[in-house]
Amino acid sequence: MATTLGKSNSGSAFGRSIPRVEARAKVTGKAEYVHNLRLPGMLYGKVFRSTVAHARIRGIDVSAARALPGVHAVYTAADIMRLVPDPHYGPAFHDQPVLAIDKVRHVGEPVALVLAADPHVAEAAAQMISADYEELPAVFDEIEAMTSKAVVHEVLKPAGTFPDLKHLKGKRDTNIALDFHLRRGDTQKAFAAADHVFEHTFRTQQVLHLPLEPFVTVADPTPNQLVIHTASQSPSFVRIEIARLLGWPENKVRVKVPYLGGGFGAKLYIKLEALVAIAALLAGRPVKISLTMEEQFYQITKHAATLRIKSGVSKDGKILARECEVWWNGGAYADIGPRVTQKSGFTAPGPYDIDHVAIDSYALYTNLPAAGALRGFGIPQLVWAYESHTDMIAKALNIDPLAMRRKNILKEGRPQATGTLMRDAGIEQVLERLAQRMQWEKTFDRGSGKLRRGRGIAIGFKASISPTTSVAIVNVSADGSVMVNCSTVDMGQGSDTAMAQIVAEALGVPVESVTLVHPDTDVTPYDMATLGSRSTFHMGHAVRLAAEDARDKLMKLAQEVGLSAETTSIPDIFRKKYGMQAGNIVGVGSFIPSYAPPDAQGQTDNATPFWMIGATGAEVEVDTETGEFKVARLVNLVDVGRPVNPAIVETQISGATLMQLGFTLTERMDFDAGQVTNASLADYKIPGIRDVPAVMENEAVDMVQQTGPFGAKGVGESGTFGVSPAIASAIDDAVGVRLTSLPLTAEAVYRGLRANAGKPLQD
Amino acid sequence: MATTLGKSNSGSAFGRSIPRVEARAKVTGKAEYVHNLRLPGMLYGKVFRSTVAHARIRGIDVSAARALPGVHAVYTAADIMRLVPDPHYGPAFHDQPVLAIDKVRHVGEPVALVLAADPHVAEAAAQMISADYEELPAVFDEIEAMTSKAVVHEVLKPAGTFPDLKHLKGKRDTNIALDFHLRRGDTQKAFAAADHVFEHTFRTQQVLHLPLEPFVTVADPTPNQLVIHTASQSPSFVRIEIARLLGWPENKVRVKVPYLGGGFGAKLYIKLEALVAIAALLAGRPVKISLTMEEQFYQITKHAATLRIKSGVSKDGKILARECEVWWNGGAYADIGPRVTQKSGFTAPGPYDIDHVAIDSYALYTNLPAAGALRGFGIPQLVWAYESHTDMIAKALNIDPLAMRRKNILKEGRPQATGTLMRDAGIEQVLERLAQRMQWEKTFDRGSGKLRRGRGIAIGFKASISPTTSVAIVNVSADGSVMVNCSTVDMGQGSDTAMAQIVAEALGVPVESVTLVHPDTDVTPYDMATLGSRSTFHMGHAVRLAAEDARDKLMKLAQEVGLSAETTSIPDIFRKKYGMQAGNIVGVGSFIPSYAPPDAQGQTDNATPFWMIGATGAEVEVDTETGEFKVARLVNLVDVGRPVNPAIVETQISGATLMQLGFTLTERMDFDAGQVTNASLADYKIPGIRDVPAVMENEAVDMVQQTGPFGAKGVGESGTFGVSPAIASAIDDAVGVRLTSLPLTAEAVYRGLRANAGKPLQD
Repeated sequence: MATTLGKSNSGSAFGRSIPRVEARAKVTGKAEYVHNLRLPGMLYGKVFRSTVAHARIRGIDVSAARALPGVHAVYTAADIMRLVPDPHYGPAFHDQPVLAIDKVRHVGEPVALVLAADPHVAEAAAQMISADYEELPAVFDEIEAMTSKAVVHEVLKPAGTFPDLKHLKGKRDTNIALDFHLRRGDTQKAFAAADHVFEHTFRTQQVLHLPLEPFVTVADPTPNQLVIHTASQSPSFVRIEIARLLGWPENKVRVKVPYLGGGFGAKLYIKLEALVAIAALLAGRPVKISLTMEEQFYQITKHAATLRIKSGVSKDGKILARECEVWWNGGAYADIGPRVTQKSGFTAPGPYDIDHVAIDSYALYTNLPAAGALRGFGIPQLVWAYESHTDMIAKALNIDPLAMRRKNILKEGRPQATGTLMRDAGIEQVLERLAQRMQWEKTFDRGSGKLRRGRGIAIGFKASISPTTSVAIVNVSADGSVMVNCSTVDMGQGSDTAMAQIVAEALGVPVESVTLVHPDTDVTPYDMATLGSRSTFHMGHAVRLAAEDARDKLMKLAQEVGLSAETTSIPDIFRKKYGMQAGNIVGVGSFIPSYAPPDAQGQTDNATPFWMIGATGAEVEVDTETGEFKVARLVNLVDVGRPVNPAIVETQISGATLMQLGFTLTERMDFDAGQVTNASLADYKIPGIRDVPAVMENEAVDMVQQTGPFGAKGVGESGTFGVSPAIASAIDDAVGVRLTSLPLTAEAVYRGLRANAGKPLQD
Repeated sequence: MATTLGKSNSGSAFGRSIPRVEARAKVTGKAEYVHNLRLPGMLYGKVFRSTVAHARIRGIDVSAARALPGVHAVYTAADIMRLVPDPHYGPAFHDQPVLAIDKVRHVGEPVALVLAADPHVAEAAAQMISADYEELPAVFDEIEAMTSKAVVHEVLKPAGTFPDLKHLKGKRDTNIALDFHLRRGDTQKAFAAADHVFEHTFRTQQVLHLPLEPFVTVADPTPNQLVIHTASQSPSFVRIEIARLLGWPENKVRVKVPYLGGGFGAKLYIKLEALVAIAALLAGRPVKISLTMEEQFYQITKHAATLRIKSGVSKDGKILARECEVWWNGGAYADIGPRVTQKSGFTAPGPYDIDHVAIDSYALYTNLPAAGALRGFGIPQLVWAYESHTDMIAKALNIDPLAMRRKNILKEGRPQATGTLMRDAGIEQVLERLAQRMQWEKTFDRGSGKLRRGRGIAIGFKASISPTTSVAIVNVSADGSVMVNCSTVDMGQGSDTAMAQIVAEALGVPVESVTLVHPDTDVTPYDMATLGSRSTFHMGHAVRLAAEDARDKLMKLAQEVGLSAETTSIPDIFRKKYGMQAGNIVGVGSFIPSYAPPDAQGQTDNATPFWMIGATGAEVEVDTETGEFKVARLVNLVDVGRPVNPAIVETQISGATLMQLGFTLTERMDFDAGQVTNASLADYKIPGIRDVPAVMENEAVDMVQQTGPFGAKGVGESGTFGVSPAIASAIDDAVGVRLTSLPLTAEAVYRGLRANAGKPLQD
């Protein structure tokens, strides 16, 4: 602990694979989760949900539930509105009611809530509730939603937080929750001049985050504050949004978040919090709601999307122009869908240097469960489309996929579709390192007989969300140990460890001396949210600035008491000042990266604080008789700048890759008239240990993000980008079957094989 | 909430009698106290205590206790030392063992600890423990302790925190834990030249804090930290001292303090925390110890003291020289006694302008329960002596008590005994206002027949503890609501409200928009402790500085986004910056007043950051047949600078006065060979509602502490100063009986009446 502020210590904390700071608490089963929390007098809530996709509510019969012994209360929207006259929430639109009002818009929508001290009583009572519905025409498909007479929301109510949604305010008879358009150059002219024009349409399915810790929230109405304990990725947002709903000042709402058992974008914005908070206030007692795994299927999903890409290409493979049309199936409530639409929209042409670009991206309301952000914020859907498209063009022109990419790759300093010049974006480095690790230019064994082998590569990129801000406090104790107050949520990604390493590096103290305070809006300052791989960069800067502020103050204090900070230990500075072990030095850091909003054409010279790059190479083995295939090798390359903790970076790459592998091969929400027909982990298959490819290699290329904290940037999503198209291209490479719809199933390959052979399917 | 940073708002928060911020939580029974805390797996601890005052421990038999079903563990010092080889703690000396080692030094000393899930089992088991003692000669009287062969501690071990204790390190065969000496001028020469020399000796008894919430601590050994929930006035000290004992860094110990049900100096430094913390670590489970009311009698007490004062006076009543000798009965462990000795020592001559002063003040170990700070830090004992002495001189010289004081009072700008020039000390103002309210110069009805009436006045002053430091964080939310992180403990004195008012004043926001975060060493920065009426001044400055830092940052932010902070609301500044309700502005304040330590003669020009002044006027009615008397009127005047909240100031004055009234009239710990014989609220009489004088008037004079936050300074103790001598002098004034020992009882008056009449007592 007896370290000085001298430079000799720096470099010791950052970039080392130290064990995660929470490892011990987790492996001993002592880590805090909201699920473990029980408060005196606490009631359990159970939700009664809609069984129809779109309907007017004629009536709700809660009499039997209310009469059940042990039931404390049954609430419907009418009760909610006694406390909150307009109980609609949402980050982009105030479209989501706390409990359904007049209408239900998707199967599984919360219609009523039962509270009881015994959760089994609450569940039994919820099953006694019935609702009388007048069913309305429903729309489920994102393309149909563009023109359907079935309108999900009568009037659009933008939240007022995003300027690009303002023009939608009060709009009627539309399901379009955002239309994003970007124009650069003149695609029509370029298509006319091109040697070839290719157009393909792709689809991705609706899937689920499925954190192993389902949604859970406890609200405790204390006399001075409403305290909300919640498994949330966005404590600051929850505080502000609940305060807005209640008409209270922010500081009367306290949001506390312990560890999360995964989030992946599911636990953002308001999920259970509004319902639990209002129920607790109505009941005057603490209330807890924990969803079952099945209920998770109705809470938030990942957008299904249809993606049409059209490219004008020269005969030697140079992409001259590209048009992208993307339709995002947002489900019944917008959640952050419009942001997904816009933020992913502007990278829809892919990491390629194309002079003429036109993008149209639409967020659509449908009568499915709401869709939001899921590890990649729309990018894996886009990369799936544009990298499949790239390989289809290469194949048509008989150009090697690597050569095709090398020819068109977006190089450092060149303008991206928004006009922003690429900086610290290791697209070329990642591509070349992937080629090297795949030994792309060496002979590849394609197999023989019924087993054929193929390989594919794919690369994607992503902008970071902007503008956002992070604030942090670093408190140095008199013995040199350090507390860091920050609202970044450690949901398994290792942020506590990363922040400790950054603070240790900035202060020049051992990383073991740094402890994190978990999010608690009373004491950890504002952070936009833990999402979009932004924390290492944004909160990393905030804690660095706070540590540097503390360091400056310590230097000043040393000077004041006549000591050299370079050679004196921190405890000695305090001791000299206070005559004993006493005092604290508190530093504050506030970070907001520079950003320029796009103009009407979608053009800006500053679209993102940093770029994330991810690429995957896949080798597959396909059974030509059955269509069954296995992924034999998966090579995942990313640019994360300087890795804060290489071991954690590696697990982030592999975790992201395997998650996307599930979305590529097995996961799909099946619907029947809006009802999920496979809403259980028995029927909905996420990857297990036996699904891990025999060979999996994960690597961060040697890069530095010049604008990042000590050269670092985010890593949580980059591993997802290339997985789906790399595998699809490998299948095509092996057996000549090009699949354009996810998931990639043996059945689809089999159908393709039969079609190629001119043989009809034998069903 | 929509206020600006413009000057127009300031002045609205400070000085108003707004309701206490915690009032609602308290009256609805929902305020958090440690007593309410139950943790999963928590064990209850029950202490086995010494029954002898001074002895070697030959053996402790815990076998029966260990064998009792339901007992989790029984610990003695040997167990403690497995974890902490040298388990001694204390703020001034490391003299107090967590459990008795080899020796016991007072009746009630903790010897062993039983842990059980059921507190009744723990209690039953504790009663099965026995110890075999070899009794040693004991010393109970502070004068005898000066020379006694009975030595409480073999070797003195100063904690190293106070430089003036260093010379005692390693000293043997002494009970003197501090000898404080101050010399100014030449008293011997002055006595020789004086017309009269008066010498009187006074005594005060040992009494108790008796907060209605007894001591309680819970320690929770979580994987990453030891979390201590404790009813403590000094969370920062507890953290540092427990970390020191365990050899851990500070940030591995987390100390949380909710509301306190009173403290009065009892809950300072380490009380139960070390025992509970170590027991929890040994058991690997949360442990709670709550003392009974009876056990409080052995935990910490107020110093009994013997005070000798000798004054040389001119025939017209001018005090020329004064010698004070004070012996403080510190009990078996020093606690903060040496600080009481030193800090009160230097004001022992009283608020009088005396050229020649000699002070000798001794902290003494005895075999009684330890004594510490109690509302006044030794000052009420001193004022009792010097104001009784003043009136005895006045009476002897036939000078009116008010005139005697007017002649000698220490005026603004004149040097106090340390040499420090008096600044912002309203001694004269308080005295004159008291005279006015008492209508001192008008005729006073002295009664007739067996009921005689008398009146008395007394005035005292006190320095604040120095040097100490306070650090605070002020966090402004995007809607203009504010969180304040500070480690000041609200134990009923209203500090939460005062801090909210000061922050609101500094920021120019409504006081309702400010919320306090309760002490939690993870997130509320260092504060020396909540003691000695220092919080309003020290923490008041820290929160003011933090608020001003936040205000400056808001001003800068407003400027940055092109707004005028003077006319724009805080929410608008955030909204302009972030495009929505987002972000925080965090300000930090750190305060340490200037201070110059005294030289070898006790001389300094900067002894205290501020002075507290308190005076009381009493009118009594005495039954000349029985000696029974009642206090008919009590007028209490204080200088608190500008009152932050006049209503709370009033309750602080009345609370302090009534507490001192108990110490004056009824409270006294009775001992038999070191055993307290009245250790219950049935036998030890604290004031009840019927003991409140029929007329009680409390007033803060119109003063401004120029160096205080917005002119304020502390108030918690000033009401105690003058109560005892004013009542004693009133009795003397009524019936000519001068009592020199507290408490003042009817029996003592009766004995005095009989003695005056030359009649022997009829027992």
